[in-house]
Amino acid sequence: MSSSDIFIGETIGTAVLILLGGGVCAAVTFKRSKAYEAGWVAIAFGWGFAVLTGAYLAGGVSGAHLNPAVTIGLAIEGGTKWSDVPLYLGSQLLGAMIGAVLVWATYYGQFHAHLTDPEVLAAQPDEDGLVDQKAAPKAGPVLGVFSTGPEIRHYVQNLITEIIATVVLVLAILTQGLNDGGNGLGTLGALITALVVVSIGLSLGGPTGYAINPVRDLGPRIVHALLPLPNKGGSDWSYAWIPVAGPLIGGAIAGGLYNLAFK
Amino acid sequence: MSSSDIFIGETIGTAVLILLGGGVCAAVTFKRSKAYEAGWVAIAFGWGFAVLTGAYLAGGVSGAHLNPAVTIGLAIEGGTKWSDVPLYLGSQLLGAMIGAVLVWATYYGQFHAHLTDPEVLAAQPDEDGLVDQKAAPKAGPVLGVFSTGPEIRHYVQNLITEIIATVVLVLAILTQGLNDGGNGLGTLGALITALVVVSIGLSLGGPTGYAINPVRDLGPRIVHALLPLPNKGGSDWSYAWIPVAGPLIGGAIAGGLYNLAFK
Amino acid sequence: MSSSDIFIGETIGTAVLILLGGGVCAAVTFKRSKAYEAGWVAIAFGWGFAVLTGAYLAGGVSGAHLNPAVTIGLAIEGGTKWSDVPLYLGSQLLGAMIGAVLVWATYYGQFHAHLTDPEVLAAQPDEDGLVDQKAAPKAGPVLGVFSTGPEIRHYVQNLITEIIATVVLVLAILTQGLNDGGNGLGTLGALITALVVVSIGLSLGGPTGYAINPVRDLGPRIVHALLPLPNKGGSDWSYAWIPVAGPLIGGAIAGGLYNLAFK
Amino acid sequence: MSSSDIFIGETIGTAVLILLGGGVCAAVTFKRSKAYEAGWVAIAFGWGFAVLTGAYLAGGVSGAHLNPAVTIGLAIEGGTKWSDVPLYLGSQLLGAMIGAVLVWATYYGQFHAHLTDPEVLAAQPDEDGLVDQKAAPKAGPVLGVFSTGPEIRHYVQNLITEIIATVVLVLAILTQGLNDGGNGLGTLGALITALVVVSIGLSLGGPTGYAINPVRDLGPRIVHALLPLPNKGGSDWSYAWIPVAGPLIGGAIAGGLYNLAFK
Repeated sequence: MSSSDIFIGETIGTAVLILLGGGVCAAVTFKRSKAYEAGWVAIAFGWGFAVLTGAYLAGGVSGAHLNPAVTIGLAIEGGTKWSDVPLYLGSQLLGAMIGAVLVWATYYGQFHAHLTDPEVLAAQPDEDGLVDQKAAPKAGPVLGVFSTGPEIRHYVQNLITEIIATVVLVLAILTQGLNDGGNGLGTLGALITALVVVSIGLSLGGPTGYAINPVRDLGPRIVHALLPLPNKGGSDWSYAWIPVAGPLIGGAIAGGLYNLAFK
Repeated sequence: MSSSDIFIGETIGTAVLILLGGGVCAAVTFKRSKAYEAGWVAIAFGWGFAVLTGAYLAGGVSGAHLNPAVTIGLAIEGGTKWSDVPLYLGSQLLGAMIGAVLVWATYYGQFHAHLTDPEVLAAQPDEDGLVDQKAAPKAGPVLGVFSTGPEIRHYVQNLITEIIATVVLVLAILTQGLNDGGNGLGTLGALITALVVVSIGLSLGGPTGYAINPVRDLGPRIVHALLPLPNKGGSDWSYAWIPVAGPLIGGAIAGGLYNLAFK
Repeated sequence: MSSSDIFIGETIGTAVLILLGGGVCAAVTFKRSKAYEAGWVAIAFGWGFAVLTGAYLAGGVSGAHLNPAVTIGLAIEGGTKWSDVPLYLGSQLLGAMIGAVLVWATYYGQFHAHLTDPEVLAAQPDEDGLVDQKAAPKAGPVLGVFSTGPEIRHYVQNLITEIIATVVLVLAILTQGLNDGGNGLGTLGALITALVVVSIGLSLGGPTGYAINPVRDLGPRIVHALLPLPNKGGSDWSYAWIPVAGPLIGGAIAGGLYNLAFK
Repeated sequence: MSSSDIFIGETIGTAVLILLGGGVCAAVTFKRSKAYEAGWVAIAFGWGFAVLTGAYLAGGVSGAHLNPAVTIGLAIEGGTKWSDVPLYLGSQLLGAMIGAVLVWATYYGQFHAHLTDPEVLAAQPDEDGLVDQKAAPKAGPVLGVFSTGPEIRHYVQNLITEIIATVVLVLAILTQGLNDGGNGLGTLGALITALVVVSIGLSLGGPTGYAINPVRDLGPRIVHALLPLPNKGGSDWSYAWIPVAGPLIGGAIAGGLYNLAFK
């Protein structure tokens, strides 16, 4: 795989992933969206099919990792060269930031209406010192459209949750090698991976909002910090390391477990 | 592909697409429908599987574009001859109009009950000068069963939203060529495309109701204007160019981007 | 295909179809069910995946028609011998009756609790002269768990709705021959058909509850008439011909349309 | 298939199945989960895709039974050696217990918050002598996150429900042999099986919560009994034999029925 294939596939694929994934968060969050309050089933399928679309687009180009945790897992397993890892990660982060900007462009009017809504502005932070993500859609700033946040803020617990969820994801992707003879995502493999992501969302997303992908959280958080949105609130940098570290650890554990148990 | 194959496949396929897509809008809109208020998840899956059914029917006949944005994207990419484009577009528009009439036939009693309901008739237009689409199901006329409308009316924003959503759709369809060696829709390709449409609906449909297909909006709007429905309200022609121009621009961008990045 | 293959496949497959399809109606209808009021999305996916399961079971045995409308359509198209039609239809009706009895066995306690609930017993018929199907789950007898009924009772309208919905179904099944080279249901074909049924449910099910299959309605209605349930109410025989005639007409139209347009 | 393949595949696969399946129960049960009250559609898809993920992981290793009812059915059918059965069953039970512990680790903070919530502690048992499973999410202890329980407690009825639901599951899995030429789960087979599980959940899960798998219920129940959770309530051992016996009987009936009717 050439460097330009990796760059193009990962950047475009991750941009589409975050556009659609962040998009569903925007869709259910904003009062003046037709999907307002469509609920957790919409979120889980929205993110799952975001992965499908991104993976389908990039599958034939870069293998469609779209996630540093997947890249790390594949590097440990041996399917991806360690020398390609930096390019994968950089392209993914760039793509995630582009995707977050596209969410903002798509929901431009909704962002503005939300952030100038008196009811939103009157919302007060909870006991964790900030307006928590779940309440945010109705009553607080817009960080939840960009990045994840915990329901109960406890770093060890939150980290463990992200690690467990990521192990499931990366192990499922690595196992494709067993079933379909390759590490890249074929068409059916992309579908299965997407449904695994729906599954993780439905089942393991409750406590932290399932980043399970460092750039899915970090890229949009950087964009949140940079965008000149009025009344946008803080970017919650004190939590930001969890959805980066957890998935990276999870990806590494999955790679090791795969080598140990499935090879 | 012969002209009659294109005509038959695109007309029947698009008719079925709009019958099922408009059908789900009717199903959740009318109080005397069993699916009343089934919510946005129903809408998103309803339109996605409408694409599946239409694409599956027409796939082996005309390649199942069912959408001028797809035809334009394929023509730019080279998979469809420019000389076939007018026939594709005409057949699609005809099919969309037939589909809208079939929605009316299927929900004939519900249309009548809705449009003679005093509560519906008493509904007042909002600040945009017309009863907006989202409120319409409960309190206004029936344009929302036929065509899309914006939550926040701002032509530049609405156009950008439609362009972005259509680029995602058409790029995903073009990329099939990479994965499955052809531009037409195979059975699995039709399924993936359908789930991409579910994804776009869940994630990017909030601001404008995601036409992402010029005839999906224009065909039913013409039928709305022509049908002798009592108290049907206006056809909102001032907005009608957005869901035509946006998807056409988006399809063209996707075709160009594909040639630039993926070829 | 031998007569015993047809008999076994169609009887078992249709029994499973109706067990799962009637099951989801029971699941959302009864107050003491964990799925109580799960909504129309549950109904639509429940019936769709009921078709998947039945078709998957019977696909390799009898070709998995499971529906006289499909059998008629295939006979007109030429994929099924007319001499086999009576056996298909008889087996399907038998299977549907077995399935309805199995729903009753599965939800035995719920049927009893529902039919002895004072609130249910106090429910009064609406202007159509009977407790209509949609209100029934909360306030009336249990016919809606067995058979379909219209939201607005008007025989011509209801018949047209059933015809249109069945044409879509049977046309999609016939078109498989184009895509996959055979009339029977392969694994992927069974999945697509199931999702087409989800689509029809979401989009066209609002007015009549989408029988789209004569035995799906008639078999359970006979069982409703025969079962010794207390306070079960009438079996609404005056409507019973619609979901038999509509799908049969629809299947025939689909067979003719297929021969005309797609061959 | 070697003993270590069976042990590794079944243990890891079943652990992931129960992590994701128990996870969705936790996700919708706990007030401080983002998926709180996401409803029965979330439960049904959550368990179905849990099966998909587990089966996908273990498919190439152990054939992915993940369920003693499947193992018994396959042993009767002839696809699995009786001498391998004890290892399958032991690995499945171990995996289920590991999965239940992982649910607790993933939702550690939510368990604690729930079990120290005064509203939860004030909840009183119903007429069956214990806080029933459905009310439990809002008002009682946490057994429902681990194991199933009936809506209406009647052992014969509950047993029949579990038998019927399991026959459908195991028959569908055995029939794969007809369609795809093997007893193990290929990629597409894993998807179909997952959707059959969604179907069973939507349609037949109402009365008992559809264990349809002895270790899915017994493994987490043992973990519930052992975990040092404050105020956790009883483990309802008087019901525990139903979701073990019912699925085993169902699996055996399915194996016999398959041999009788489909071979």
